[in-house]
Parts: sequence; structure tokens; C-alpha cells
Amino acid sequence: MSQPQFISGNPAAIDKFLEGFDTFLFDCVLWSGDSVYENIPETLNMLKAKGKKIVFVTNNSTKSRNDYQKKLTKMGIQCELDEVFCSSYSASIYISRMLQLPEGKHKVFAIGESGMKEELESEGLVVVGGPADTYNRNIEPEDYQAMADKTALDPEVGVVLVGLDRKINYLKLSMAFHYIRNGAKFLATNIDSTLPSHHTFFPGAGACSIPLVHMTGETPLALGKPGQAMMDAIEGKFQLDRDRTCMVGDRLNTDIKFGIDGKLGGTLMVLTGVNQKADFEAKDAVAVPAFYANKLSDLLAASK
Amino acid sequence: MSQPQFISGNPAAIDKFLEGFDTFLFDCVLWSGDSVYENIPETLNMLKAKGKKIVFVTNNSTKSRNDYQKKLTKMGIQCELDEVFCSSYSASIYISRMLQLPEGKHKVFAIGESGMKEELESEGLVVVGGPADTYNRNIEPEDYQAMADKTALDPEVGVVLVGLDRKINYLKLSMAFHYIRNGAKFLATNIDSTLPSHHTFFPGAGACSIPLVHMTGETPLALGKPGQAMMDAIEGKFQLDRDRTCMVGDRLNTDIKFGIDGKLGGTLMVLTGVNQKADFEAKDAVAVPAFYANKLSDLLAASK
Repeated sequence: MSQPQFISGNPAAIDKFLEGFDTFLFDCVLWSGDSVYENIPETLNMLKAKGKKIVFVTNNSTKSRNDYQKKLTKMGIQCELDEVFCSSYSASIYISRMLQLPEGKHKVFAIGESGMKEELESEGLVVVGGPADTYNRNIEPEDYQAMADKTALDPEVGVVLVGLDRKINYLKLSMAFHYIRNGAKFLATNIDSTLPSHHTFFPGAGACSIPLVHMTGETPLALGKPGQAMMDAIEGKFQLDRDRTCMVGDRLNTDIKFGIDGKLGGTLMVLTGVNQKADFEAKDAVAVPAFYANKLSDLLAASK
Repeated sequence: MSQPQFISGNPAAIDKFLEGFDTFLFDCVLWSGDSVYENIPETLNMLKAKGKKIVFVTNNSTKSRNDYQKKLTKMGIQCELDEVFCSSYSASIYISRMLQLPEGKHKVFAIGESGMKEELESEGLVVVGGPADTYNRNIEPEDYQAMADKTALDPEVGVVLVGLDRKINYLKLSMAFHYIRNGAKFLATNIDSTLPSHHTFFPGAGACSIPLVHMTGETPLALGKPGQAMMDAIEGKFQLDRDRTCMVGDRLNTDIKFGIDGKLGGTLMVLTGVNQKADFEAKDAVAVPAFYANKLSDLLAASK
């Protein structure tokens, strides 16, 4: 494996890097919490001025594409709805267009927030659970029997989809477990163990699905990075040339692995987020980027 | 490894089995939900009449020894407080008597129910979290910052103890994660993935700790079966002769493994619960019992 190339402060290397790609897939390495990093809008404008195509690819399942567009706009980053590709959208497309569900098994039991529900419904899917108040409560004694004798279960549920739900509770986990035991397909928007926010970490979508993995012994098909179902969907939608596409991210086991597994022309790691240089220099590194930079706005040092 | 011996319906084999042991450690193979299996009180009375010592050893962390004594009595099973050994008690003893916590780091952040709190407090420990209402709520925007800057964290917390909490939520997982990141020891009463109830399964204590394992990369020391810290505590308390002690249970990866790892004289598997014959006959069986029976009350067929 070749050594990753450090491009910060090296205009010639940055020029060469930029010339190598037509499309940049961005993980949300642009902000932390609600604050955008310095010079991010300028960096994106520079890329667009050079004619580069930009796609925001995020594993965050709590927001819909609409929500993302609003968030980006609010932070001063202009973007079109079609430039956003989130894991809830990826999962919704997969369920509605690719998964061959048996007749009468088309409903989705969702553990997730409003963005997931919006994307599922935009694909015509019927959501059971999700952000609705129905299951946002403690488990009650009668719930155990109702799950045991299946009267609590909707017989038309054929899929359990798990994303990040900051109202995760024992009742939802129990319901999802019983649906999976009854034959529902087990899917996840993504399985990130942590969610970076406020310059630290909080439980990620994977924290909501891992109890079910542990209980059922089944691993869900994850529709977010680094899963290649998401890359295939992106390629199909944007008709991109993988050789001329670069994945930009801060997380080795999702972003960089996503780009490498997807056989993209390149990957750029920025050191403003989850992983640091030592992580990809480690002997057992889960993935090694082709390029790395201290921060995304270092690309502004391009000389051309 | 020798073949497990089937003793149901074989009075001679049952006699020989009973003669081999002075003490029987029972997992809660005596009931499902709130109903005791048929002839259980009679079976226990028969054992006591033969002068056998009985200890109820349970991984269930939601109940205290007091709660258990009440439950057993209500189901017609006479027992003394000292015959009950639960994982919350085991964990409380471990924390108060064996763990060398640094000065000023003696509080326990608990994810668990009232029985766990009762046992921790009976050992003089101060509980943060636990069943108190403080954290039985949704996470709020200000909580993120308060965890990030540590104002939400009690600086005297030196241990995070996780058991089954049927009010588990995102806030509690976030708090526990931040305590562990700040150096608190990560312990679990037990890591059972499921909780058998109503002739089916619900999330077990392990479903509450596995998100933290996934997030931190750390595995908690588990103070319940099959962990040998529990066996050592039982041996110390009851002064038992391991060679003359038999573990009775329905779960290979906890009960039977607990007895084998503890080098007890024997293990008896009953087929009324989690695992079946095929599970210990499988090539990759996690543990193989020395004896097995269809149900515990089959022991009543003893001829002597």
C-alpha cells in the first residue's frame, strides 16, 4: 500500500490533487455541531468555480435531504436538494426499489427520527414506529404478553430499519427484536458507533442497532458508508466516473473505507474530526487514505 | 470431553447424581415470568430433606436479594435471604470490598433498577443515576454541552455499573460513555443479551452495556455468571466444597460455563429454558453439561 500524501501547505500538490478529480463526495467534515469550520464556504465555492461536482454524503439518519439542505444553507453553504445523499434516503431507495418483499409484508418498523420517516414516506413506504409517540414510552406489564402472543405486532411489517433515535428505549428494542424473530429483514441506515458533536462524541446509530445484533446474532445490512449499496446508488443517480471521484472524510472505518471499497480514484482524509494521523499509520489501520490534510480549507492554497 | 448424561426417568441415575453433591447452585430455572414450573417447591423440599444446601444464583440485576426472597416466597418456595446471590449483590461486594478506587472517586454511576441501587447502598456506596428520576428523560440540547464541558459529570464518580434498565435511554448511555471516557471503571452486573420472560425473550442487561462496549472499545468486567468473581464470592460466603457442588441452569453460555469454569463437581442442564439439547451437541457448543434433564422436577423420581 502506498504512503498517503500530505497536501497541506503544498500548492503544487494541491493543484495536482484537484486536477485528478471531477467529483468530490463530502462527508460532513464541514462542521461540528452547529458551527461550520472556517473558510468552508470559500473552499466549496473554489471547487465549484473549477467546475467540480459536489455531493454531500452523510450517514446521519436523523435528517432528511430537505433538512440537510436547510442546515447547509443556514451555515452559509449553498446547495441543491440533489446534492445531498443521506443514509435514510439510501435505505429508503433500497427498501422500495431493490428489496423484494413478500406480498403483504411492505411496512417498515423504524427506529429513527423524523428525517428517516420523511425519506421512507417519500418512497411511498408505510412506517410503523419511528418518531411517532406510540412507542415513546416505558414498557408496561401488558406489553410483554402482547409481544409474546404477537398481538402487539403488525403482521404487514417486513423490514426493521434502525438508525439513530435519541428517544431509543426498551420498548422499541423489544418490538424490533420480536419483528426480526418473526422474519422481518434487519437493516440499518448506518452502524457508526458514535456521533461527533460539540467537539466530543455521543451514541451513534450503531448504538441503537448493536443491542439487536447482540440479541439476534444477526448483522443488519447497513445502507450507509462504508456499505457499497450506498455507493452504487450514488453512482446510479449522479452517473459519476469512479476513477475521477474522490471521497473526502474524517473517519477511516466509514469514509475512507467507503472510497477505497468503492474503487474511487482517490480519498482525502481531513484531520479535523474523528481520526488522526496515528490511526491510519497504525499497523492494523482499517483503511489508509491516498491524501490527507490538516483541514479542508487548506485546499484554498491551490496556486491555479 | 465426556458425553452428558441424561437422567430424566432413570431413578438409579438420579440417585447417583444426588449422592454426588452437597450443594446445588440454582439459576432461576424454577419459573418463567411469574409462574413457577410444576412441582418445583416439592423438588426443592426433597433436596433440603436430603440435607442439601441450596443457593439461588441469578444474573438478574433488577431485583435485590430482598426482592428475590419475596418473589420466591410468593411462588411457594421457602428461602432465606442468605440463600439468594444476585448479580447486583455480587457487583456491590466487588466494588466496595475488592476494587481499589482512588481517593475521591467512590461514587457509582449506575444504569439499573431499584434492586441494584438497594444492593449498592447496602454496601455503603453512593449511587448517581440508577432508578432516580434525574435521567429518566429525553436528552435536551443543553445536555450535550454540559457533557462536553464535564459540568454534567460528578467528579467523584469512579465506576460505571451497567445492569438491566428497562428505562434505558440516550441520555443515560451518553452520561455513562462520558464517565468511562473520563476514566471511570466500566463494570456490568452481567452481560446476558436476552432476558427470558413470558416464554419468549426481551432485551437483557447486555443490551444496555453493549452500546458502550461498541462506543468505547472496552469490555466491562461482568460480575455475574459466567464470571468467576461471582463464583469466588459465593465460595467465600458459603464455604462450599467445589467438588461437591453442582450448578443447575438452562443457559450454556452463563450457567453451565459458570460451573465448568469454576471447576465444580458437576453441572446439570434443564431443557425448560433458553438452550436445548442441540445447542450442547453442536460442534461449537460454548459449554457441555455433565448431566441434563427434561425438567428440574424429574429429580423427584429418585428412588431413595
